[in-house]
Amino acid sequence: MGKDLSTREENYSEWYNELVVKADLAEHSAVKGCMVIKPYGYAIWEKMQQALDKMFKDTGHVNAYFPLFIPKSFFSKEASHVEGFAKECAVVTHYRLKNAEDGSGIVVDETAKLDEELIIRPTSETIIWNTYKGWIQSYRDLPLLINQWANVVRWEMRTRLFLRTTEFLWQEGHTAHATSQEAIEETEKMLDVYSTFAEKWMAIPVIRGTKTPNERFAGAIETYCIEALMQDGKALQAGTSHFLGQNFAKAFEVKFASKEGKQDFVWATSWGVSTRLMGALVMSHSDDKGLVLPPKLAPFQVVIVPIYKGEDQLAQISAVVLKMKKAMEAKGISVKYDDRDTQRPGWKFAEYELKGVPVRIAIGGRDLENGTVEVARRDTLEKETLQQADIENKIEHLLEQMQDNLFQKAMAMRETKTYQADTYEEFKNILEKTPGFVMAHWDGSAETEQKIKEETKATIRCIPLNNKQEAGKCIYSGKPSTQRVVFAKAY
Amino acid sequence: MGKDLSTREENYSEWYNELVVKADLAEHSAVKGCMVIKPYGYAIWEKMQQALDKMFKDTGHVNAYFPLFIPKSFFSKEASHVEGFAKECAVVTHYRLKNAEDGSGIVVDETAKLDEELIIRPTSETIIWNTYKGWIQSYRDLPLLINQWANVVRWEMRTRLFLRTTEFLWQEGHTAHATSQEAIEETEKMLDVYSTFAEKWMAIPVIRGTKTPNERFAGAIETYCIEALMQDGKALQAGTSHFLGQNFAKAFEVKFASKEGKQDFVWATSWGVSTRLMGALVMSHSDDKGLVLPPKLAPFQVVIVPIYKGEDQLAQISAVVLKMKKAMEAKGISVKYDDRDTQRPGWKFAEYELKGVPVRIAIGGRDLENGTVEVARRDTLEKETLQQADIENKIEHLLEQMQDNLFQKAMAMRETKTYQADTYEEFKNILEKTPGFVMAHWDGSAETEQKIKEETKATIRCIPLNNKQEAGKCIYSGKPSTQRVVFAKAY
Repeated sequence: MGKDLSTREENYSEWYNELVVKADLAEHSAVKGCMVIKPYGYAIWEKMQQALDKMFKDTGHVNAYFPLFIPKSFFSKEASHVEGFAKECAVVTHYRLKNAEDGSGIVVDETAKLDEELIIRPTSETIIWNTYKGWIQSYRDLPLLINQWANVVRWEMRTRLFLRTTEFLWQEGHTAHATSQEAIEETEKMLDVYSTFAEKWMAIPVIRGTKTPNERFAGAIETYCIEALMQDGKALQAGTSHFLGQNFAKAFEVKFASKEGKQDFVWATSWGVSTRLMGALVMSHSDDKGLVLPPKLAPFQVVIVPIYKGEDQLAQISAVVLKMKKAMEAKGISVKYDDRDTQRPGWKFAEYELKGVPVRIAIGGRDLENGTVEVARRDTLEKETLQQADIENKIEHLLEQMQDNLFQKAMAMRETKTYQADTYEEFKNILEKTPGFVMAHWDGSAETEQKIKEETKATIRCIPLNNKQEAGKCIYSGKPSTQRVVFAKAY
Repeated sequence: MGKDLSTREENYSEWYNELVVKADLAEHSAVKGCMVIKPYGYAIWEKMQQALDKMFKDTGHVNAYFPLFIPKSFFSKEASHVEGFAKECAVVTHYRLKNAEDGSGIVVDETAKLDEELIIRPTSETIIWNTYKGWIQSYRDLPLLINQWANVVRWEMRTRLFLRTTEFLWQEGHTAHATSQEAIEETEKMLDVYSTFAEKWMAIPVIRGTKTPNERFAGAIETYCIEALMQDGKALQAGTSHFLGQNFAKAFEVKFASKEGKQDFVWATSWGVSTRLMGALVMSHSDDKGLVLPPKLAPFQVVIVPIYKGEDQLAQISAVVLKMKKAMEAKGISVKYDDRDTQRPGWKFAEYELKGVPVRIAIGGRDLENGTVEVARRDTLEKETLQQADIENKIEHLLEQMQDNLFQKAMAMRETKTYQADTYEEFKNILEKTPGFVMAHWDGSAETEQKIKEETKATIRCIPLNNKQEAGKCIYSGKPSTQRVVFAKAY
């Protein structure tokens, strides 16, 4: 095949960059830091959206849409939020272009300068809480459970397709509650939704935990997250859910009257996942031959390739294929029949391997005689010859098996790459030689966390929920600690 | 009810503005010209998206995503496009803010000025054709049938919710073809998709036609459109489909090798509908009591309101309701049961009338005894008492009837408001006294079109497809004409 990839062994980073482009998921655009999500990549994102959107709606949320632009002054209203978000962003200063007087093209019309600059949303807490102010007067208006699917922009100097781009697509939930407890429950519920999605759909095991204060969302009281481990031993934060306390309600003066008629500030959460998940998906399962997609998120789950000589045989094969295809589709399996005569079977095999199609069915002259097909599964690359009869049930079962197998494989990989370190030497040694999650004692101080980050580039990914309590000593300061936390280098 | 609307008679424009806000569809945001689409409005938009997206996919299209930003220089590449789109737009000039030295807040960091300004996409032909250049080499790469769901920004001085907003949501299809004929067929096919959607889903009859050169999309060879008539006799362009010839392929140097090995520029189309359709939907069917929604686009089609005394009776009613609800949902009917005790039945009736829920079912103590329910339909405001038995089939039938009735009613309204004018006096008289579509002869010149527009504010909405040919004289110039065209004042 003409699409040789770097191997993961040779250069994991190159392998990823090449794979995303060669498998037609995305590519760099003419605008620095912004990507084009190609149809095949976008079809996976659509599958993700559908599954998540259903889960959001099943948990009582509704969608809405808020403006792309945020007035600059809004960012200054929540003190820590401005530090986190208002710095590296796209700033709209003018609203008109004009023809240059020297005929050299078009230029900004300086007379069309905005009184107040508009920021392209890097996240929408400020514009949304400014809006909620008009929507919430009484406890009857609560809870407000709203989600938005949108594009956001954070100006990035070093970008990588899906993992870190200036513009990206995401969903952001923004909820409002009458009590602190209800808001915390919501924050945790949405973390559950995310971890269920990661594990059941993406087939990626995740650690659920809370961030250290250093790593919290700007404006949050508590940030919950799910952390996944990639094949190269680097961690990837796959979703966050924030308990915002009354910070944004206070910044935007959003109060409600309780049943008893008392005025109080509203309690808030926000939570989001983004096209970054596409990067996690690619890096978790794929191999040196290309993408490996979990069946639940594959744009098509089965591809059928005819191997034929002449039009007559193709017609005979097609008759059989179309019957099988129909039977599979009736079971909700998505099937593509690639009978193009412009490409040879070998080319097609390599192409669908590269694109991670879960199951490939090949059918040739001998299969016609024997009533068989050749079934190849993408995850293990195993092939077997199966009878055509009842193929839809066999494939359905195989897809379920593959979905489960991918999760088990990823789980085994994570377990292999999860270590305990009891000394700083050990810790550094692991990070250098066998990177992965390192469970280690930490004294709980921001200073220690910062020093470790500076010296090793490893960060505290999270403090796991329901973490085992055990007495120990901080690997860095030697001070007493009550639990191990999860360290790793991260994307 | 506490939500009195202006009537259409009193002030159609006010009626619309109030209705959009009071029915919880949308509201103005803190950013001038930008709207917040509220959950109820967004749910209708989601229904529209789902129906359209399915139609696009059924006709072979796939979705993708291109950057929000377009480099300024891209606009200059297609000569007429720059005139049409590069003027009133949001311009990003900087990518960083910083704390003001005087501590007064945050200000633009002048050191973070972009070398080339970025324009927020007003439409994406330029960035997309710049991308297609890398995707198209041979006839094997064609046709390319891609759609994008996105937000776009066109700086507007006078805005109205849904009808004209600075930021709006839309879909834009961008296809590439090997021949002119195939591209024209695509343009016409998508016009068909739009008119089918308008008539079958939105229940709005539309005239299909082509625009005059004056009114063409900037960069198009031919612009097809569907034109609807609102209750006040003003026209609304509900969708456009453009045959772009080789203009963008030439501007961005997109060539392909034909089967015979000849190099030629690629042929293009683009087509789009936007949240403007929400405005058309509201204005076509609604009345002085509020929204009237066609069943196929209603967020929920049936609302059930219990009328009860005491908890015991509510429990009895609820048992019956939940059975009916389940039976209806099994038929794909969306049902909301509003058993809130915080509002009285009369309040709920008014609320759901305002929100245009197609069918309201009320059930009280006497209904329990008689095995009946009261069914009220929103379009005619008629009520009838029906037996509970088999209610799901009766409601299913009723919803189909209502969908059809709304279309017929809108069609009758349009016919009543469609006129022929044979002299300019007659023409002006109609526009002034009984506005609507005016079918009149036109000499085909841009000059006449412009004069009529200046003098009467009426524009040529379109030249209908398969238009009847008849000899006549231009109402303005008296010059000979071969067909009548559709004039109207328009949104």
